[in-house]
Amino acid sequence: MDPGLTRCGIGVVDGVAGRPLRMVGVGVIRTPADAEIGDRLVLVERGIEEWLDAHRPEFVAVERVFSQHNVQTVMGTAQASAVAMLCAARRGLPVALHTPSEVKAAVTGSGRAEKAQVGAMVTRLLRLDAPPKPADAADALALAICHIWRAPATNRLQQAVAAHRTARAPRSPRAPRSTKGRIT
Amino acid sequence: MDPGLTRCGIGVVDGVAGRPLRMVGVGVIRTPADAEIGDRLVLVERGIEEWLDAHRPEFVAVERVFSQHNVQTVMGTAQASAVAMLCAARRGLPVALHTPSEVKAAVTGSGRAEKAQVGAMVTRLLRLDAPPKPADAADALALAICHIWRAPATNRLQQAVAAHRTARAPRSPRAPRSTKGRIT
Repeated sequence: MDPGLTRCGIGVVDGVAGRPLRMVGVGVIRTPADAEIGDRLVLVERGIEEWLDAHRPEFVAVERVFSQHNVQTVMGTAQASAVAMLCAARRGLPVALHTPSEVKAAVTGSGRAEKAQVGAMVTRLLRLDAPPKPADAADALALAICHIWRAPATNRLQQAVAAHRTARAPRSPRAPRSTKGRIT
Repeated sequence: MDPGLTRCGIGVVDGVAGRPLRMVGVGVIRTPADAEIGDRLVLVERGIEEWLDAHRPEFVAVERVFSQHNVQTVMGTAQASAVAMLCAARRGLPVALHTPSEVKAAVTGSGRAEKAQVGAMVTRLLRLDAPPKPADAADALALAICHIWRAPATNRLQQAVAAHRTARAPRSPRAPRSTKGRIT
């Protein structure tokens, strides 16, 4: 999920690192700018719940919010991301946060890539006919891809499973690659 | 509510502007600092829901978050306040935001009052034996008092009712004073 009050991008990607990925769904939850903030958060919550109900993801990745930009925008983003994390955690789903530069670096090789470059790589990696619009939707898919590729290192559940499997034996340097169906 | 991830202050005050106020309840919702952020938000949500269930307030006031302070703290506060607003709006409760300086000015006469001064005035106005501890609890009560006193000017429901009552007659310069039982 690429959280926002005006537009909250949602992307669902199925796959594992090292194999072709598949886009399961993509969309944007919108809320009216002139509505009360509480009502906007309720609309974001409903939208996210519908996506979670429809796709039953195994993992949720949310863009990590920074405050270097416009203060008002950052507040809205932080509040929408809180709702995203709340919805996921309420279902017991593992929530991962990735920064915008981590996402860009994962899909383009550069943490300072332009929006268009991210869109182009998302289109290529998911074998789409055209870049998803708006940018929030493409960003959500990029986040999903980033999470699938980074998950072996970041997902605690996987780590716990791996730790259990290897018991007291030395840890394998190779991370497990058995996850799929993440929603971002 | 004085939102926060580590401590979320809750105060329930009953009364109307111009008459003595009554403290109905006060407390703090705490979440462990080492827990996942999503899980902390779920704990905040549960705590708030319990307070709303127990007291059925007519209005909810939440401290407005600014980002002039420590970035990480502000993010946590913004996320906790999102949960507070979400819980209230989900029940159709009017949500009001007041800034810390508005709250201080309302209860002490100065927007730059010290914490101790706010605590002292809360104690006096609610006729308590001692200032509520921790400060987050006292701040939540101060916010409730601020909202009750400011509500005639800020509460849209009241304004709508007043507008309906006066129909097309000129508006009364005196705001209505019929609200009570706010939770903050």
